[in-house]
Amino acid sequence: MKETILLDHGAGGRASHELVQRVFARRLANPVLDAMDDAAVVEVPAGRLAISTDSFVVDPIIFPGGNIGSLAVHGTVNDLSCRGARPLWLTAGFVLEEGLEMSLLEEVVEAMAAAAAEAGVSIVAGDTKVVGRGQADKIFINTAGVGVIPPGVDIGGHRARPGDAVLVSGTMGDHGVTIMAQRGGLGLKAPLKSDAASLHGMAAALIQACPGLHVLRDPTRGGLATTLNEIAATSGVAMELYEDAIPVDPAVSGVCELLGLDPLYLANEGKFIAVMPEDEAPAALKAMQAHAKGGRAAVIGRVIEAPAGRVWLNTAVGGRRLLDMLSGEPLPRIC
Amino acid sequence: MKETILLDHGAGGRASHELVQRVFARRLANPVLDAMDDAAVVEVPAGRLAISTDSFVVDPIIFPGGNIGSLAVHGTVNDLSCRGARPLWLTAGFVLEEGLEMSLLEEVVEAMAAAAAEAGVSIVAGDTKVVGRGQADKIFINTAGVGVIPPGVDIGGHRARPGDAVLVSGTMGDHGVTIMAQRGGLGLKAPLKSDAASLHGMAAALIQACPGLHVLRDPTRGGLATTLNEIAATSGVAMELYEDAIPVDPAVSGVCELLGLDPLYLANEGKFIAVMPEDEAPAALKAMQAHAKGGRAAVIGRVIEAPAGRVWLNTAVGGRRLLDMLSGEPLPRIC
Repeated sequence: MKETILLDHGAGGRASHELVQRVFARRLANPVLDAMDDAAVVEVPAGRLAISTDSFVVDPIIFPGGNIGSLAVHGTVNDLSCRGARPLWLTAGFVLEEGLEMSLLEEVVEAMAAAAAEAGVSIVAGDTKVVGRGQADKIFINTAGVGVIPPGVDIGGHRARPGDAVLVSGTMGDHGVTIMAQRGGLGLKAPLKSDAASLHGMAAALIQACPGLHVLRDPTRGGLATTLNEIAATSGVAMELYEDAIPVDPAVSGVCELLGLDPLYLANEGKFIAVMPEDEAPAALKAMQAHAKGGRAAVIGRVIEAPAGRVWLNTAVGGRRLLDMLSGEPLPRIC
Repeated sequence: MKETILLDHGAGGRASHELVQRVFARRLANPVLDAMDDAAVVEVPAGRLAISTDSFVVDPIIFPGGNIGSLAVHGTVNDLSCRGARPLWLTAGFVLEEGLEMSLLEEVVEAMAAAAAEAGVSIVAGDTKVVGRGQADKIFINTAGVGVIPPGVDIGGHRARPGDAVLVSGTMGDHGVTIMAQRGGLGLKAPLKSDAASLHGMAAALIQACPGLHVLRDPTRGGLATTLNEIAATSGVAMELYEDAIPVDPAVSGVCELLGLDPLYLANEGKFIAVMPEDEAPAALKAMQAHAKGGRAAVIGRVIEAPAGRVWLNTAVGGRRLLDMLSGEPLPRIC
């Protein structure tokens, strides 16, 4: 019989301790976590911190290109990187369903540990709750993160200015379409793979190459279209994009056509949108393309003055249409 | 028809934005959160930070003395306070079940806002996911927290020393027994109420009154017995307690007897265990008792040398027994 998670593992007593020691502590070990106190203690320099949180409920838990554990690390590392912070410390909160296979949990925690090591972050605090069968779906993970913002760096969704160039670091929609294709046993043969990855290295390179960098955002849920709408609204500017210039993998566009999905509205988990003065765009593009995850980086549009909050798409066939936020048919549990 | 949470509210598009604006942003507003970027930015002095996380899955969501929202704030404020930190910033991650009544979510968020205001913390970052019906039970909340530890303060579960006094800040078991009594419609008439409360003020007063304070811990899941076992193990010491001295509310002991529960193993959500040199115990007791939540504070035992990791209970009838960690029958979803 396979070993599974029991309600007792969440009761805070001996079984909880054994679970923590056996599954979590060994894999995620670091001097701060090892103290196993009510809160972790870390040292910081005076200055600005970035703080973020994200809950992950992706279904299926394991998918081509990663699993919910690696995704939970990448997602929060990228949220911190988007403010120009050096990601340093993560927390991890687990909600487990009674009956979850222990080996599955171990696989997820292994992936978290590997992703954290690769991103140079420590998981310094954790928590595990167990709920009864049918009260959660296998495993949900929350990660919160703290990073240090170097002096002089000022990047945020409010800083896009007319005349800025709009870049993406690679192809759009890979994560979203991979998850959707895994559902319901479509049995698609297309070579789909989530792009989930930590982009702290690319962010640091971009900040170095491009001192005027205004905005970095990762277009996750809602995709490129929704995230650009958010930036346009927050900055009080408009944008125009060139459909031809937006990189989409042929396998992704093929499956999108089949499933009736638009890659511009699908989640990405290893891509940046970057906005900077037009004269810095060549250096930014070069910095992205030099990075392992940025080979397909491209300039996809520019920031214009008005009407504030609108994003226009100049289509491949010579038309022009408004690119609205995602609305209507939801894609649940994509991340 | 009552308004409910839809899958669309978690898709990251227009409906998600409307939910954030309508339910969260207005109630939790503060200058850091209002920026609504991928990560929040805050200013810190150089020094030590405490970082913690806790997920809340309590069932029922609303109970005498609070709800899952206020509990999620108190829990993380207390975890930070236990390291001597001044709690400053929280993040909040929500997992919502499709079909959750909007008014219930609003009530929970109101309670979070009130608890945060009372504790002097800002909720600076948030995230909301929605899963399908039957894939979660109404609402789960993760809070992570960051606080600043004043110079010179060094409090942790590893610092208990033989000769130290062991104190609690009030009656044991109130939260746990209140939650258990709410389940299954027992219809008990006993005046039970969760003790859930933020103890940052009491922690600050204790640190002031008691410069040699070694350990502060909040005995949540697993209760007093389990938490003392953890402290004893981490510090490599033993403890002996005086059963007579441990404060338990008569209504709590009555219902515990009825339900076959032991208040020493039940969760508390507004109580501290404090360990300090014996000669500082009177000042510590006075500081706790001067606090609104510390009227029933008491010295309940002392730290002894050996055998390391053991906690002994000198019983009211003159016996002596080992007080082990919680094991066996779990009490699921108590916090």
